[in-house]
Amino acid sequence: MEKEITIYDIAKLLNLSPATVSRALNDHPAINSNTKSVIAAKAKEMGYRSNTFASNLRRQRTDTIGVIVPRLNSHFMSTVLAGMEKVVNKSSYNLIISQSLESVKKEIANAKTMFNSRVDGLLVSVAYDTDNTDHFDAFVKRGIPLLFFDRVLEHKQGTSIIIDNTKAGYEAVSHLIEQGCRRILYITGNLKRNVYADRLKGYRLALLEHGLPYLDELVMVTDLSQEAGIEAARLIQRMDKKPDGLFIANDLCAVSCMSALRKNGFSIPDDIAVVGFNNDPVSVVIEPNLTTIDYPGEKMGEIAAQSLINHLNGSLDIQNTNTIILHSELLIRQSSVKKGAN
Amino acid sequence: MEKEITIYDIAKLLNLSPATVSRALNDHPAINSNTKSVIAAKAKEMGYRSNTFASNLRRQRTDTIGVIVPRLNSHFMSTVLAGMEKVVNKSSYNLIISQSLESVKKEIANAKTMFNSRVDGLLVSVAYDTDNTDHFDAFVKRGIPLLFFDRVLEHKQGTSIIIDNTKAGYEAVSHLIEQGCRRILYITGNLKRNVYADRLKGYRLALLEHGLPYLDELVMVTDLSQEAGIEAARLIQRMDKKPDGLFIANDLCAVSCMSALRKNGFSIPDDIAVVGFNNDPVSVVIEPNLTTIDYPGEKMGEIAAQSLINHLNGSLDIQNTNTIILHSELLIRQSSVKKGAN
Repeated sequence: MEKEITIYDIAKLLNLSPATVSRALNDHPAINSNTKSVIAAKAKEMGYRSNTFASNLRRQRTDTIGVIVPRLNSHFMSTVLAGMEKVVNKSSYNLIISQSLESVKKEIANAKTMFNSRVDGLLVSVAYDTDNTDHFDAFVKRGIPLLFFDRVLEHKQGTSIIIDNTKAGYEAVSHLIEQGCRRILYITGNLKRNVYADRLKGYRLALLEHGLPYLDELVMVTDLSQEAGIEAARLIQRMDKKPDGLFIANDLCAVSCMSALRKNGFSIPDDIAVVGFNNDPVSVVIEPNLTTIDYPGEKMGEIAAQSLINHLNGSLDIQNTNTIILHSELLIRQSSVKKGAN
Repeated sequence: MEKEITIYDIAKLLNLSPATVSRALNDHPAINSNTKSVIAAKAKEMGYRSNTFASNLRRQRTDTIGVIVPRLNSHFMSTVLAGMEKVVNKSSYNLIISQSLESVKKEIANAKTMFNSRVDGLLVSVAYDTDNTDHFDAFVKRGIPLLFFDRVLEHKQGTSIIIDNTKAGYEAVSHLIEQGCRRILYITGNLKRNVYADRLKGYRLALLEHGLPYLDELVMVTDLSQEAGIEAARLIQRMDKKPDGLFIANDLCAVSCMSALRKNGFSIPDDIAVVGFNNDPVSVVIEPNLTTIDYPGEKMGEIAAQSLINHLNGSLDIQNTNTIILHSELLIRQSSVKKGAN
């Protein structure tokens, strides 16, 4: 690769002092505008890359916001990012995105890359196995605002943006009980993560309130992939006492489980009623259409990005706002409505 | 925000020369390892961010590869990125990703951000309205390798990785003709983009070979969104001479069009046979299952990333490789197989 062009190279070619070149590139008032134009043109021609430290010395900004997500391959995450883009583009920021692929090791590498890219702020939804926030300490130490969304961790500095997962889980499971279900299987992701643990709380609360027992055997921890949905259908097939209701913590997994169950001869919702989570577009492609929780992904993205930008602009201190909770909604469709129920 | 920590600050605190600190942070052999540890620990404690230029002076690398894509909200793009991650993680690189949201203006901003983040290489699939490669000139000038995938532009430096879209379009449309279709509507994206223009070439070739006329009215340019699929169904409803076959350039749009047509009383495939593109998971959720082209997204991502890394390691010069073409495959399912055909 070529050697990096420096202000010394530009200065030499133009027969100017490095200080003049540096000041001109930083739009210093002491340099006249003709000189600035000449220097800027030469810098561009030579492929000079502004050293972020130098060129942003006055305002210390790169106009870049970093986002770290567990995975990009979900409709939910697409809608979150769409909401973020909407807000940051309006404010002339640019997003750079990286995925942890559910691994804390890669999340640490991503955090380092984002730090060295000198992002002005960081938005994070944590990986499957993230235990602590140590790898974000460098940001806090440098005063770079940090905001968690959806999958959040306890941390002293910064805001978390979530939905009320306990309430959503409670509503999903209460609905299934009202449809006559008595053995409801909860298919979940890692219970370390707030989103899945809180939905479990909601599941337990709904059972408790309706006088149904909580059974460990009716909680199945998976990675919520399509393959996990097929595997869950296989396990259900083998169960002695089969469930009559499923609450599955994402739609992709729910849809593949439903398809597999139907192939195995189960009738949905009559044999087994199903409720998913997220309101992915696929939930209205599957027959019968899937009852699900409408997750306000775009809104979550917008509010996360706007909170960060407001902090950067000095109009909100996210250190003083702990948690923002957004509304979600149970959408009842055919996959869970049993004939004659209610 | 706090002032950036420099090697001068570290040097002052440790009572060492800035040159020693710089050398230590760059792992210079002249500095002993104890000194290096002390300096590294202090740098970490103070929140020092390695100035990429300084710390990578010897090898000029950030171990970061930039990716610019039109949109992240597609299964196809997820699989491409999965392939890229697989390869770059193995080689200890990290991806940073940005989306152009189909706008050349944002693509230009993204390119600038990637340049200033000092990516070691750049992988690009261009936006809806990108006309030229001027905004990537800075990379070429600095010897930063640039590689286009899927949606590519003619450019002198660098490699393009594509599938044979003409062949794929030809096979899709030939199949529909063999099923008895005589009026085949092609629902496409912007014909400026190679992927859609080449599929149109395949469409025309298939008609020509089977002695069917090419009619402008049977080519519908849309943004291939779900909404476009519903709108296409509405337009088909209103056509005097209705099509008996649809070739739709992505599955998401095809599935929503199929659903809308069925709601309007059309029978798939008997009234209208449908072929999509990409082999999205949704293609086997919709009933009847969608005939589609299996697009090797993960393979494309792997080969794009591997080619770039091989170039960075000096084992392949992508300037000498113009185009890499990957295999795609027609997957015939129920949405296109008419009773009694063949």
